[in-house]
Amino acid sequence: MKHSEGLEWAIHSCALLAMMPPGTPLPRRLLAEFFELPEPYLAKQLQKLSQAGIVETRRGPRGGYVLARKPEDITLLQMVEAIDGPDRHFVCTEIRRCGPTGVAGKHYTRPCGIARSMWKAEAAWRKELAATSLADIQHLGMAETPPEQTAKAIAWFQANLLQGETE
Amino acid sequence: MKHSEGLEWAIHSCALLAMMPPGTPLPRRLLAEFFELPEPYLAKQLQKLSQAGIVETRRGPRGGYVLARKPEDITLLQMVEAIDGPDRHFVCTEIRRCGPTGVAGKHYTRPCGIARSMWKAEAAWRKELAATSLADIQHLGMAETPPEQTAKAIAWFQANLLQGETE
Repeated sequence: MKHSEGLEWAIHSCALLAMMPPGTPLPRRLLAEFFELPEPYLAKQLQKLSQAGIVETRRGPRGGYVLARKPEDITLLQMVEAIDGPDRHFVCTEIRRCGPTGVAGKHYTRPCGIARSMWKAEAAWRKELAATSLADIQHLGMAETPPEQTAKAIAWFQANLLQGETE
Repeated sequence: MKHSEGLEWAIHSCALLAMMPPGTPLPRRLLAEFFELPEPYLAKQLQKLSQAGIVETRRGPRGGYVLARKPEDITLLQMVEAIDGPDRHFVCTEIRRCGPTGVAGKHYTRPCGIARSMWKAEAAWRKELAATSLADIQHLGMAETPPEQTAKAIAWFQANLLQGETE
């Protein structure tokens, strides 16, 4: 069982958007370039984040992506569900009712105990993800990004966003 | 993100083996019949459970599958990892190091904060699964199986295991 590859890209993209100065939309092209990602596939992840109300697009020559909400108001769970969907990981097909000893559905008054146990573990996972905000992720990132990279990143964004303005 | 379909089959099979009287191996054919499952695909799940040391086979005319350990000593996590593997669900490809602002690997002293946050949630999921034993599952099942089904199941096993003896 694996998350889609796009999830890593989506969370990093949101974390990068959270770092941008207010009123600085980030064009998709620069987002893809920054992480060295294939732009068409990144576009699909951004579309999912947009559909989930996590990012939004600003049109125009200085357009691009911005966060739709404050980083404090975006959780890791929301990003995960935007990309991988909200469905449970364990699907119960009620095989306990199948076969020669199964009885009518009305006799099974609760969901299967196996499914309930699996879903309880999923709930613990969801709870942890819901307790982690993009702001938390941002603070971890700020503390951990090598100063050499921070300096390069600021210079790169200034050069590239500036370049965009004069194009 | 979904568990493989075989996981439901594997856990139910273990729960059924846990219900059998001591010294009563269950042939694969009957396990498949009981849950109305395709035997060749169930065989693959049983093979994985066997490789993980959760079930074992008894050879001979009265042969079949038995649990390799007591239900108290088998956890839901062990069954999940036997079927879906022990790998993490979130794979970090270190995209923070890619692109025009990445710096040499030695500057990144810890795993990425995004990966750590995802793995923390996975740890909460694992902890919950590890705290649930097959004996717990068995107790839930005993409490919930409709009495009508229990009666049919006992009769079915007596008829079929007895039939096996006289074949």
